[in-house]
Parts: sequence; C-alpha cells; structure tokens
Amino acid sequence: MPTIDILISEVGPRDGLQNAGAIMPTEAKKRWIKAEAAAGVREIEVGSFVPAKVLPQLADTAEIVQYARSLPGLDVAVLVPNLRGAEGAVAAGAHKISIPFSVSETHSLRNVRRSHEQMFEEVRRIRELIDQQEHKPHFEGGLSTAFGCTLEGPISEDLVVRSAEKLMQAGCDEVGLSDTTGYANPAQVSRLVGKVKAAVGDDRLTGIHLHNTRGLGLANVIAALDAGITTVDSSLGGLGGCPFAPGASGNIVTEDLVFMLEAMGLRTGIDLEKLLQVRAILEQSLDGEPLYGFTPDAGLPKGFRSASAA
Amino acid sequence: MPTIDILISEVGPRDGLQNAGAIMPTEAKKRWIKAEAAAGVREIEVGSFVPAKVLPQLADTAEIVQYARSLPGLDVAVLVPNLRGAEGAVAAGAHKISIPFSVSETHSLRNVRRSHEQMFEEVRRIRELIDQQEHKPHFEGGLSTAFGCTLEGPISEDLVVRSAEKLMQAGCDEVGLSDTTGYANPAQVSRLVGKVKAAVGDDRLTGIHLHNTRGLGLANVIAALDAGITTVDSSLGGLGGCPFAPGASGNIVTEDLVFMLEAMGLRTGIDLEKLLQVRAILEQSLDGEPLYGFTPDAGLPKGFRSASAA
Repeated sequence: MPTIDILISEVGPRDGLQNAGAIMPTEAKKRWIKAEAAAGVREIEVGSFVPAKVLPQLADTAEIVQYARSLPGLDVAVLVPNLRGAEGAVAAGAHKISIPFSVSETHSLRNVRRSHEQMFEEVRRIRELIDQQEHKPHFEGGLSTAFGCTLEGPISEDLVVRSAEKLMQAGCDEVGLSDTTGYANPAQVSRLVGKVKAAVGDDRLTGIHLHNTRGLGLANVIAALDAGITTVDSSLGGLGGCPFAPGASGNIVTEDLVFMLEAMGLRTGIDLEKLLQVRAILEQSLDGEPLYGFTPDAGLPKGFRSASAA
Repeated sequence: MPTIDILISEVGPRDGLQNAGAIMPTEAKKRWIKAEAAAGVREIEVGSFVPAKVLPQLADTAEIVQYARSLPGLDVAVLVPNLRGAEGAVAAGAHKISIPFSVSETHSLRNVRRSHEQMFEEVRRIRELIDQQEHKPHFEGGLSTAFGCTLEGPISEDLVVRSAEKLMQAGCDEVGLSDTTGYANPAQVSRLVGKVKAAVGDDRLTGIHLHNTRGLGLANVIAALDAGITTVDSSLGGLGGCPFAPGASGNIVTEDLVFMLEAMGLRTGIDLEKLLQVRAILEQSLDGEPLYGFTPDAGLPKGFRSASAA
C-alpha cells in the first residue's frame, strides 16, 4: 500500500453510533465500513464489547468485527471496558483493543464504576489474556478526560503522566490521549503530548482523540501534529461524543480533517471524493441524526489536488 | 489599559452585515458595537464606505463611525473600495482604513471592476488624501483571495508577495492577508505569512482575515500565530463572508476564537462571559439570520479561567 504520513482512525461506528438515537442496522454498518475502507481509511473502530443492554446500538460488534476483518488492508479496532469485553474482542479477532481509562477518577467511577486501582488490575488481566494468544492484538490504554472533566473540572497534568506510566507498567502496548469533554486547547495539547511522550517513550504515544465541542478540534490537531502525533481519531459526519460527560458532544469530522491534512500536503491515503460520498450511507440509515462538517457543504476548492493523489 | 497578546478585530458590523439578508437598524448596530467594546474588544470594523444602492445594509456607516469614535479605547476601522470611500472615511474620522486588493485579478474585476494597476493608482490617491490630513488614519491594504480564488483556483504565492510589495510602495502603512474564499490550510498560512513578512517587513504584516468555510478557521489561526501574526479578524456569531465569491461564507467566530486564545493563555483583553451575552443583540435584531459558533452552545469548561482575568 502507498506510504501515508498521518493515520486516520475512524471511530464513527463505535463512538458515533453509541451516542446515536437510532440503532443502525447491521447491514448498513457493514456498507459504511466497507465504503470507508474502499475510500482508503486504514483503521476503523467498529464497535465496543459491552453488554447489549447497556449499548444496544453496538450489540452486533462481534459480527461487525468478523466482517471488517475480511476487508483487505483494514485494521479493525474495538473498545473494551474490561476483561470480559477483551475476551469478546479476542474471540472475534480484533486487531486492536483500546480500554478507556478516565484520569478523572470521579468520571471513571461514574462511567465504568471502577476506581483507578481497579482499572490497572483490569489492564493487567487483559495483558495476561493477550499474552496467551497466538495472534496478539495491539493493546492501547486511552487516557480519557485527560484535558479536563465536566465533573471535576481541570485535571492535573502530573496525574495524566503518572496514569500513562502506570498503564504501560500494567501491560498496555501504547497509550492515547483523549479529550472526552471537548475542553482541550492547542497550548495544552502541545504541552501534554510532550510530557506524556517524555514519560512513556516517543513511540508509545502516537494517537489522539479530540472533540470539536467548542470548535477547537482541528486547531488541536495542528498542535498535536506539531508535537509528533501521527494517528488522529475522527468520526464521519462528526457523529458521537460521550454520553456520560454531560454537554460533551461532537467528535472531529473525518471529512474536514482529511481535507485539512491533504491540503497541507500530508498523505492520509484517503480519496476525499470517495469519502464525501460515504456520508450518504449515514444520511439514509440514521434518519434525523445531526451530521456535522463544513467541507461536505462547501465542497472542495477549485483546482484542489490532494497530497495522496499526487 | 491592560496589556494584550493578541488583538481581535471584530468585523461583524461590516463583513457580517453586508452579507445579511436583513438590514440591521442603526440603533441596534450601536448597541452591538457598544456592548462589544464594553466586553473589551479594542478594534471593530464598523462599516464600509460604498454607495448605499450597492450595500444598503451599510448606508449608515458615517453615523456609525461617529458614534463608535465616542467609545473609549476603541479603534474604529472601516473598509473602503476606492478614493471616494476613503474621503467618506476621513470625513467621518475613522482611525483605520482598509482597502481590499484582490490578488486574483479576475476577482478584482468582478468585485470592484478595477484591474491591479487601477487599484495601485487608487491606493496612491488615498495616500495623498491621508497625507493632507492632520490626524492620519492607519491605512491597510488587504490582500484578498490570497489563498485561492473561486474563479481562478490556486493563486501564485509570488503574485501575493509582489502585490504586497506594490501596495506598500503605493502608500499603504501595512498589508493584511485575507482568505476570502475559505481555501486556506495551516501549512499555506504558515508559508505565505513568512514570505510576505520577509518581503515587506515583519511589522508590516501583523493581521490576518480567515474564514471557516471548510472548518479550518481556528486551525489556520494557530498556524498564523506561530508565524508571528498578532491581529486576527473575526465576526460575532460567524456572521458574514464574501457575496462575490460564490460558496464562500463564514467568518471565524469571535466567541470560539476568544475562548481558544484565552484558554491558551493568550490575553485578548476580552471578558468572555460578557462577549457571549452580546450574541443576544444579533438574535434579536437579525431575525432568522444563521449564527455560528460552538462555545456559545457548549458553554465554558468547568473551572475555566481566562488569561485576561488572571
């Protein structure tokens, strides 16, 4: 496959759908994932292994993982809240497993009903599970509420750094930073990426999950790239957010993100024209769900050439 | 007055209103300008000296300039398309006069029906007018369509640089860069700011006018700040755009911009809580006009402290 500069990790089928009012039919999810992969998206978080009664929108995650694995060149990522979820992810054959760790312990207790110590123990157990497998999925610890919490307010940067170190010690392959609440600003992104990279190693923090809650999503991406981040989460149509952090909605929009990167000369491997067409699948199968993004409305600039097409 | 790091130049009363469907009553304009000045905004582009039949929304510009001059600590800026407009601006007592110069000559002919050479001649005449005044307004040449044109497509960066040099030679005190069409990306902003500063002098390009047409407005601001820009145009509620560049709408939103800068520790001198309240004036007096911005909906983060309040 062609070389890329920045990896876009599409999280819509997980983060977007878990916050949608409607339940997307399994066949529509497959069409969406297939169409994004065909547009050149190389990593998609396709679901979450949580009880169906908690998130009925994601009850078909095992089937979706198995389907997505059949698409050539696609890395299939899932979110798991605990060991039980990880067992499901391993059984289904996910390539990448992420566990969210709320740096705000208040948010952790509210979101997954576990203290920090209980979370580290869960990570250790998942590490043991993975070590028993022949094909080991990549295991990431996502530091959520890293830029602030709607319950606690500001979050200590030292606590973020220590949490990152402990997640690595407990057995994660990598950590990620997540602006769950849409509180991040570019100066903070730059500072915190630098601190966490310094603590756990440059190649152990490569990804970031940002929201556009206050319109700063892409500005924060610029700061993250300058600080050495190479994987950026986003959601087609900006679907999603976090239902347990009140008022915190709005992933950054894949369409606008890819436009920005390609316009800057950074290759994502994604065909922007094809990507913009995928949006129609969401419009058809998530009736009434608000979709975001400016590039889909404005269209591409006259004479635009993407870096990946060059 | 307290020191600031970044000057916000509010362009809503000019750029916003000239594109609005409704005509805002003069008294409402005054309330808006007074309320923004009271919130700490130090420069407002309050109107444009163009014939009332072309832009009836701005027919009261002379009265608005005279009113705005009475507000303490406020720099009153206006846009003029030609010498005749500059005469009106000087007579009314504007502190700052900007003339837009379309680097795309096609756009220039369409927008103000003048070639580049005719525009340089107009700038020379305005310089002569200003030199005759006891109180000389600051005179800026705004390089519009600098990042691309909806008519011509890509614009040569060398042509932008040469145009900047010629505007300075013709008598401008300063030049500005304007993304009239919403085509700019952060890499381009960084590059072009650097090139123009190198050509005309670091202190002769301090301001930038960006649009959010494709969602990249604040990302472009970050690139501009990194390149040494210290004055950023924006519009309350994101009102405005350019009516002569089809499909190009959406100034960057003052509310989101001020939130970003203050969160980053950059002082604008603006009280964000007060600024957010000014939006109500637009809602009341521009019935049905769409307003943009994320921070007004999401509110400020829990425990947020602005740099200017520190």
